[in-house]
Amino acid sequence: MSLLVMKFGGTSVGSAEALDQAAGIVADQAAAGHRLVVVVSAMSGVTDALIRGARTAAAGDGETYRAQVRDLRARHYGVVEALFAGKGERAELLFAVDAHLDEFAAFCHSVHVLGEVTPRAMDAITSLGERLNARVLAALLRAQGTHSQAVEATDLIVTDGTFQDAVPLLEPSRTKTVAGLGPLLEAGTVPVVTGFIGATAEGVTTTLGRGGSDFSASILGVGLDADEVWIWTDVDGVMSADPRLVPEARVIPVLSYAEVGELAYFGAKVLHPRTIRPVIERGIPLWVKNTFNPDFPGTRIEAEARTTAGTIKAVTAIRGLSMVTVEGRGMMGVPGIAARTFAAVAGQGASVLMISQASSEQSISFVIPTAAVPGVMAAIEEEMVLELARRDVDRVWSLDEVVIVTAVGTGMRATPGVAHRLFGALAGGGINVIAIAQGSSECSISLVVGAGSAADAVCRIHEEVINHVQA
Amino acid sequence: MSLLVMKFGGTSVGSAEALDQAAGIVADQAAAGHRLVVVVSAMSGVTDALIRGARTAAAGDGETYRAQVRDLRARHYGVVEALFAGKGERAELLFAVDAHLDEFAAFCHSVHVLGEVTPRAMDAITSLGERLNARVLAALLRAQGTHSQAVEATDLIVTDGTFQDAVPLLEPSRTKTVAGLGPLLEAGTVPVVTGFIGATAEGVTTTLGRGGSDFSASILGVGLDADEVWIWTDVDGVMSADPRLVPEARVIPVLSYAEVGELAYFGAKVLHPRTIRPVIERGIPLWVKNTFNPDFPGTRIEAEARTTAGTIKAVTAIRGLSMVTVEGRGMMGVPGIAARTFAAVAGQGASVLMISQASSEQSISFVIPTAAVPGVMAAIEEEMVLELARRDVDRVWSLDEVVIVTAVGTGMRATPGVAHRLFGALAGGGINVIAIAQGSSECSISLVVGAGSAADAVCRIHEEVINHVQA
Amino acid sequence: MSLLVMKFGGTSVGSAEALDQAAGIVADQAAAGHRLVVVVSAMSGVTDALIRGARTAAAGDGETYRAQVRDLRARHYGVVEALFAGKGERAELLFAVDAHLDEFAAFCHSVHVLGEVTPRAMDAITSLGERLNARVLAALLRAQGTHSQAVEATDLIVTDGTFQDAVPLLEPSRTKTVAGLGPLLEAGTVPVVTGFIGATAEGVTTTLGRGGSDFSASILGVGLDADEVWIWTDVDGVMSADPRLVPEARVIPVLSYAEVGELAYFGAKVLHPRTIRPVIERGIPLWVKNTFNPDFPGTRIEAEARTTAGTIKAVTAIRGLSMVTVEGRGMMGVPGIAARTFAAVAGQGASVLMISQASSEQSISFVIPTAAVPGVMAAIEEEMVLELARRDVDRVWSLDEVVIVTAVGTGMRATPGVAHRLFGALAGGGINVIAIAQGSSECSISLVVGAGSAADAVCRIHEEVINHVQA
Amino acid sequence: MSLLVMKFGGTSVGSAEALDQAAGIVADQAAAGHRLVVVVSAMSGVTDALIRGARTAAAGDGETYRAQVRDLRARHYGVVEALFAGKGERAELLFAVDAHLDEFAAFCHSVHVLGEVTPRAMDAITSLGERLNARVLAALLRAQGTHSQAVEATDLIVTDGTFQDAVPLLEPSRTKTVAGLGPLLEAGTVPVVTGFIGATAEGVTTTLGRGGSDFSASILGVGLDADEVWIWTDVDGVMSADPRLVPEARVIPVLSYAEVGELAYFGAKVLHPRTIRPVIERGIPLWVKNTFNPDFPGTRIEAEARTTAGTIKAVTAIRGLSMVTVEGRGMMGVPGIAARTFAAVAGQGASVLMISQASSEQSISFVIPTAAVPGVMAAIEEEMVLELARRDVDRVWSLDEVVIVTAVGTGMRATPGVAHRLFGALAGGGINVIAIAQGSSECSISLVVGAGSAADAVCRIHEEVINHVQA
Repeated sequence: MSLLVMKFGGTSVGSAEALDQAAGIVADQAAAGHRLVVVVSAMSGVTDALIRGARTAAAGDGETYRAQVRDLRARHYGVVEALFAGKGERAELLFAVDAHLDEFAAFCHSVHVLGEVTPRAMDAITSLGERLNARVLAALLRAQGTHSQAVEATDLIVTDGTFQDAVPLLEPSRTKTVAGLGPLLEAGTVPVVTGFIGATAEGVTTTLGRGGSDFSASILGVGLDADEVWIWTDVDGVMSADPRLVPEARVIPVLSYAEVGELAYFGAKVLHPRTIRPVIERGIPLWVKNTFNPDFPGTRIEAEARTTAGTIKAVTAIRGLSMVTVEGRGMMGVPGIAARTFAAVAGQGASVLMISQASSEQSISFVIPTAAVPGVMAAIEEEMVLELARRDVDRVWSLDEVVIVTAVGTGMRATPGVAHRLFGALAGGGINVIAIAQGSSECSISLVVGAGSAADAVCRIHEEVINHVQA
Repeated sequence: MSLLVMKFGGTSVGSAEALDQAAGIVADQAAAGHRLVVVVSAMSGVTDALIRGARTAAAGDGETYRAQVRDLRARHYGVVEALFAGKGERAELLFAVDAHLDEFAAFCHSVHVLGEVTPRAMDAITSLGERLNARVLAALLRAQGTHSQAVEATDLIVTDGTFQDAVPLLEPSRTKTVAGLGPLLEAGTVPVVTGFIGATAEGVTTTLGRGGSDFSASILGVGLDADEVWIWTDVDGVMSADPRLVPEARVIPVLSYAEVGELAYFGAKVLHPRTIRPVIERGIPLWVKNTFNPDFPGTRIEAEARTTAGTIKAVTAIRGLSMVTVEGRGMMGVPGIAARTFAAVAGQGASVLMISQASSEQSISFVIPTAAVPGVMAAIEEEMVLELARRDVDRVWSLDEVVIVTAVGTGMRATPGVAHRLFGALAGGGINVIAIAQGSSECSISLVVGAGSAADAVCRIHEEVINHVQA
Repeated sequence: MSLLVMKFGGTSVGSAEALDQAAGIVADQAAAGHRLVVVVSAMSGVTDALIRGARTAAAGDGETYRAQVRDLRARHYGVVEALFAGKGERAELLFAVDAHLDEFAAFCHSVHVLGEVTPRAMDAITSLGERLNARVLAALLRAQGTHSQAVEATDLIVTDGTFQDAVPLLEPSRTKTVAGLGPLLEAGTVPVVTGFIGATAEGVTTTLGRGGSDFSASILGVGLDADEVWIWTDVDGVMSADPRLVPEARVIPVLSYAEVGELAYFGAKVLHPRTIRPVIERGIPLWVKNTFNPDFPGTRIEAEARTTAGTIKAVTAIRGLSMVTVEGRGMMGVPGIAARTFAAVAGQGASVLMISQASSEQSISFVIPTAAVPGVMAAIEEEMVLELARRDVDRVWSLDEVVIVTAVGTGMRATPGVAHRLFGALAGGGINVIAIAQGSSECSISLVVGAGSAADAVCRIHEEVINHVQA
Repeated sequence: MSLLVMKFGGTSVGSAEALDQAAGIVADQAAAGHRLVVVVSAMSGVTDALIRGARTAAAGDGETYRAQVRDLRARHYGVVEALFAGKGERAELLFAVDAHLDEFAAFCHSVHVLGEVTPRAMDAITSLGERLNARVLAALLRAQGTHSQAVEATDLIVTDGTFQDAVPLLEPSRTKTVAGLGPLLEAGTVPVVTGFIGATAEGVTTTLGRGGSDFSASILGVGLDADEVWIWTDVDGVMSADPRLVPEARVIPVLSYAEVGELAYFGAKVLHPRTIRPVIERGIPLWVKNTFNPDFPGTRIEAEARTTAGTIKAVTAIRGLSMVTVEGRGMMGVPGIAARTFAAVAGQGASVLMISQASSEQSISFVIPTAAVPGVMAAIEEEMVLELARRDVDRVWSLDEVVIVTAVGTGMRATPGVAHRLFGALAGGGINVIAIAQGSSECSISLVVGAGSAADAVCRIHEEVINHVQA
C-alpha cells in the first residue's frame, strides 16, 4: 500500500468538470488501496484575479476589487451549485466562499485605505484561492464517499520570511507535516492541502513563488517519505517540442532531473527544477500526468538518466533575446575581463541565458533579454572606459532579434554523431548559426539563430534528429 | 619607390649563414629601388642567455654570468670571423662585441653585489642582444656594398615606464622616428634598428614584451607611413595546422587580422595580434615570409577578410588545460553568479581560454590552464560558500587532460554547412566533444576534447574540412 | 504692513485655554495690521497617541487603538465644547473630529488586518493631529472675528519620498505656497496651515521628522518672503542653562545661528538648526516667544553674531555618554588610524558627539552614547585586530558615566581670557576635566567631566563666567 | 653585578674625543663590576653621507660617491690615527676602514651602473657606518685594557623584510642574542654591537628605521633580561622645553613612558616611543644620559608615572601646520562624516596631529602639515561633493600658519587647577587659542595658536606653569 502525493494544478481543478475529474482520480487511487495526500492549486485564473484586486486597490481604485469579489463569488458559487446541488455540503461551502471573499475584500479595503500593498499583505491575499479550493475539493471527495479533510499548509510548511518567494525549511516542515497529516492518514482520511502556501515560524502566511504548488507537493512528499509524487496537469506530459511550432511533438516518456533543468524555460508551464529537487534527491519517483487523460502514463522524472546513446529528447526556443559581444584584441591573456563584464551585467539585474567565449580570449558573447540591452551596454562601456580608451577593448555591440534554440538529451553526452546530425539538419535548411555553447554537464547544446530562422531550426531539429533517431 | 620595413627574427639572424641570407635579402630589395628600414632581433638564444646570467647573478652565483660572457663572446666572435675575416669592419666589430659583453658583465656584477635584479635592470641587460646584432648586420650590409647604419631604438620609440612589458606611445614615437630615420632614408642609407627595445621619455631603456621586435617593426612602419611591413621568419608563413601534428599542413596565403587573433595561441611563434594592430589599422599590408625561402610569397595579413564562403583556414590545439564547471539547479535566474565566478577566477590570476554556458543557466563551464585549477576551485568554493550550503550551487568540479581544438576561418561565418562538416569529421572518428563555444565575432569555433583525441581531431578536421573545401 | 509666519507648538495649542491664548495673539497681530500665516502643531500628546494606536494595531492588538479613538474624541470634544458652545461652528467641528478619528480608526483597522505598519502608513496616520487642530484654530479665529481658513500643507510643501523624515524641495514648495496662500493673504484671510506635514510630487502625505512644524514655518516663511518668523512655545526663549540645574538661568536675548547649532542638544526642545536654516539664509529674523507670556520679547535668532567680546551665553550638559579611547604608541605617524576608527564607529550607526586627539597621535578619544559602547568597542577591536596583535594599538577602552559640558558663545572666539575664567570656575570646585575639545569654527568649548561633577560644573560656569561677565 | 645595555648615539661616538669619552664610560662601568653590552651608532653624519653617495650614484652621478669615500676615509683614518697611533690595532683598523669603504664604493658603483637604488640595496649601504664604528670602538676598548669584541647585529636581531623600516621579531631575536652574546658575557668580554641593523631570517641585512639604534639597545636589553638600559646622547636628558625658545628650560629628572610619547615630536632627537616599548614593558629602567657630562644623572624613563599632582613637566611646539575644518549644520547626527573625512585624509597619506570636534557635531577640525593641505582639501571636497551640494556640509576651509603647543605631564591628570593656570598664562599674554584638545589618556593638553604667538605661548607656559609649580 503506497503513499502517493498528488498535486492538481490550476486547470486540473479550474471548473466543476475538472474538479469532478480530479476527484474521480483521487477516488480511484484511494479505492486501489493507496494512501493519498492531495495538494491543490487555486482554480486557474483565481490567483491572478486576487493579485489584480490588491494592486488596483493599492493604486487607489476602490471598485475593481469589488468587481473581482463579485466575479470570484459567481465562479465559485457556480462550481458549488454544479457539484453540490441538493447535497448537505452546499450551504457550508457557499458560506466558506463568502467568508474567504469577505476576507479578500477586507484586505483590499485595508490596502486601499493605506494606498500600498506590501509583499506580506500580497501573500495573505494570494493565499485565498488555494484555501478556498481545498475546501471545495475535500467536500467533493466526501460527497463522493471518500473520507477527506481540507488542511491549511500554514500548519505544515515552515518557511523563512522572504514574502512572495519564501524558502521552505525542510526539517521543521517535516516535523509539522508528520504531526499534522500522520493521524489523518492513519485514519484513512485523504488530506487536501493548500498548495503554494507556507508560514514563518511565527505563523505569518508566506507563498513559495513560481511553481509553488509543485514545491508544496515536493516538500510534503519528502516529509512523509512518500512512495511517489504525481503532478497532475492539462497536458499528457513533457513534450519534445512546443506543439504550436512542431505539430509532430510528442510526450517524452522518461526525463532525467538534469534534462528537466535544461527544459525549464520551455517547460516552465510544467516544472521548475528547484521545486522538485527535494523529491529527486530522495529518490522518490515523480510523474507528470494529464488530469483529462489519466490513463496515459505521462512523463516520469528520474534522478539519473536511463537513455539510449545518441538521442536528443527535446528542442526548445527562447525568444526576445539579444546577444552582446565585448570584443578586443588587447583582451587576450588579461585576467579579469570576464569578471568585470559580468559584474556590470549583474549590476543591471540582467539574467544571462548563454555565454560563449572561444579560445582566443578576444571576445566574450552572451545572451540577455533584449529589454536589458541598453542598461547592460552602458554599464559595460562605463566599466571598460579605460580599456576602450587604450584600445584593449575595441567595441561592445549587440545583435537583437536572436533566438536560443536548445537541443536537450542526456543521450548526446559522449555521443560523437549527435552534433553532426544537428548541424546537418540546420545546414540542410540553410540556417546560419550565430553562436554555439555546450557545457560539459548539460546534456544540451544551445545555438543562437536569427529570429526569422528559429521556427525552421526547431522543426528541422525535431524532424531530423529527434524523430529520425527515435523512429 | 616603396618604403618597406623588414623585421628579421632571431633565427633569421642567428648565425653567419642566416645573417648573410638576411643581408642578401636586404641588398636585393635595396637594389630593386625600395627604401628600407630593417628591424633586427638578437641572435636566437642570446636573450635567454642574458636573462639567465642576470638571474643567476642575483641569486648569488658569481660564475654563471661569466660563463655566459665567454659563450656569447665565442658565438659573436665566430660570426664576425666568418663574415668579416680580412675586412676592415672586423676589428671594430670585435671591439663592439667586447664592449657590449663588458657592459653585460658589469650589470651582472652589480646585480650580484646587490643580490637582486629589478625589472628596470633586466630591461637594460636584455637589450644588449639586439644592440649588438644591429651593429653586426649594419656592418655586413656595408661590407656588401649597401649604405647602412645601426640605430638604437631608444632614440626612436617612446614608451611608458612598465619595464619588461612597456606600452609604446605612438605620437611621440612617430616624431622621434621621423627625425631619427628620415635623414638616413633621404641619404639612401638603410637603418638597422634594434628590435624589442624602447625608452621612456626620460631615456631609460625599456623592452616591449612578447613579440617585441614585431611590435618595433609595426611602430616604425606606422611612424614612417611605410608601404608594407615584412616579418622575416624561418617558416614559409602561417600554417593551416601544426606540421608536427598534420603533415599535410600548408601555408595560408591570406589571413584577416581577426583570423590572426584566433590563431594567436597556435601561431604565437609567428605573430601576437597586439603587435601588428598599428599597421593593420593604418591599412599597411603585412607579410610573413621565410628568410630561407625568400621567393615563396608567404602569408599576407589584411585588415578585412577576402575569402571564399564555407572555408576553414586553420585548425589549432591548445594542451595542458582543464575544464571547470560550476553547477546548480538553484542558479537559474539568479543574477551575478557569472560575475562572482569570474571574479574568483580573476583573483587567482588565471587566464580563461573558453567559456560556455548553455541556455539553462544551471551551469557555467570554462577552461583554464591545469596548473591554475586548485587555486581557482578553492576560490570559487569560498566565494559560493553560502550558495553551496543552500544547494543553489550543487558542486564545482574540474575535468583535467582536456584540449581546446579551434577551427578558424572567416569563411565559416554565416555559412550553415561548416559546422556540419566539422562535426561530421569528428563523428567519423568517434571523437567525443565535451564542450563547444562559438562567439559571434570570431570566425572560429572551439571544441573541448579529451587529450587522447586531440591529435585525431585536428587531423580529421584538417583532412575533411580544410583540404576538402580548398581542393 | 509686515508678513509674519507664526508657528504654535503643541503646548501652545494643547488645551482650550492655550488655543484661546494663541488665537488672541493672532487676532492682536492681525489687528495691528500684519498679514499672518499661522502654522499649527497637533495638541501636545496627540501625535504620540496616534503612533501608539498604529503600533499596537500592527502588533495584533485590536483594542488599544479604539481606546485611543475614545480618548482623542473626548479631548477634542472637550476643547470644542469649551470654545464653541452655542456657536455655529460647533456642529461642524464635532463632525470634523469624528471624520478625522474615523479615518484614524480605519487606518488602524487596516493596519490591524494586514499586521504591519509601513513608514508611509505611519505618516498618513500621524498627520491627523495637525489636520484636526488646524481646523479647530481656524474656526476659533473666525468665531473671534478674524477671517481665517485651515489649509493642508500637503497642498503647499513638496518633499522627497523619505517617509517619516522627508526632505522638503524648496523651489516646488515655493511655487505651490505662493499659489495656495497668496490669494488668501490678498483677501485678508489668515491661513492656518498644518505643521509637520508635506506631500510628494505625486501627492502622498509625508512628515518632516524631528522639529517638523518649525521646518514647516521656515519653508513657508521663505516661500512667501516673510518679514519675520515667530516660533511660539511655552518658555520665554532660549535659556542660558537648564533651569532645573541652574535656578539663575535666564533668557538669552540674541543668539547667532551658529550658537543655536551649539545649543541644539540642550535646546532641542526649542529649535533644530536644520529646520531654521532656510530662514536664516534668507536673512529673515526669527524669534522664539512664549505663548503664555506674549509681551516678553523672547530670543531673537540672527545669521551673524552681534556680541560683546569675552562673553559666554549658555552652558549645556549632555548625559548618558561614554568616552572611548583607542590608544597605542605604535599609532604615531601611521596614516589611516583615525579613518579606520571612525569607519568602525559609523558601521555601528553611532553618533559621535565629541572627538579629541592631542598632538602625539598616540590616542584618539571620542564620546558616544553609552548604549553604543559594546558594539563600537567590538567593531574597533575587529578592525584593529592586526594592530592589536602587533602592539601598534595597545588597547581600546571606554569610560562610562561621563557628561559633556559645553560653554557656548561667539564672544569667546578670539578672546584669550574666557578659557582661563572657565577653567578657573572648574578649578574652584575641584572638578576634574577628563577631556577638552574646542574647534575653530564653533564658538564653543566642550569638556568631558564625570557624571557626578556635571551639575556642579554647569552651575559654576553659569555663575562665574556667564553671570560674572554679563553683570 | 648588573647587566647594562649602553647605547652610544652618533655624536657620542662621532670623533676621536667622543669615542675616547665613550670608551672611558664603558671602562668605568666595567671596572665597577657591571656586565656590559654596548650598542653603537655610526659616527654622526656618516649615515647621511652614505645615503647621499647611493642616491647620487643612482641618479647617474659617478663622482659624488667617490668623493664621499675619500671624505669618509679621511675622517675614519683621522680617528684611527688619533686613537691608535703606534698601537697594534692601527693597521688592522685602517684595513677595516678600507674594506668597508671598498664595499661602499662597490655598491655605489653597482647602483650607478644600474641607475637605481632599491630599499634593500639602501639598507646594505647604510649599514656600513655602524659596522665600521663597532670595530673602532671595540678596538679602542681593547687598547684601553677592556676585553671587547665587535659583533654584527645581523647575527642577533631577526626582522621582517620591510627594508628601511624593518619590524624586529622579538622571540627569534632573543634566541639569537642569547646564543651570540651569552658566551662573550660569560667570558667577561664587552660586545660592541652595531646599532640600527638587523637581518631577515634568510640573512639579508635590514635597518630598523628612525631611532634604530635605540631600538637595537631595547631589543638586546629585553633579549638578555638586562638590569638597565642607558641611552648616551649629547644632552643632559629630556628638557622641559626647547632651550632655543626657553633659556630657562631644564632637564626633567623622571618621565613616564606616556609622557615620553607626548614629547616625541619635540623630543624626537632623544627617543621614539616605539623603540623603547620593549624595555618599558619588561619593567627595565631606561636612562637618557650625556656622554659629555656622565656624572649628571640624566632623565629616567619609567613605565608608570611617579609625580606630584598639578605639575606640568614640559611644553613643546610643532610648527609648519595648518588646521582644516569641515563644517555644516546638516552634519549633526549623521553617522559616518568623521569616518569619511579621515578616509579622505588618509588617502592623501597625511599624518593627523590633532583632532577636535566639540559636542555639536557640526564641525570637525584637525591639524595636518601645511604641505598636505591642498591634497587633503581637494580629497575631502570630492568625498563630500553630495553633502556640499545638499548643504549638509557648508564648507571645508583651512587656517595656515598655526602651531600646536602641547603641555605634557601626568600630574595634570585629575588635577583641576592645571588648565586654569595654563589658560591664565595665555590670557596674561593676550594669546588667542584657536582650538583645544585633551584626550583622556594623554597627560597632555594641546592648543592651536597662531604662528606669531607660539614662542610667547611656550615661554609663558614654561614660566608660569612649569617653573611656578616646580619651584
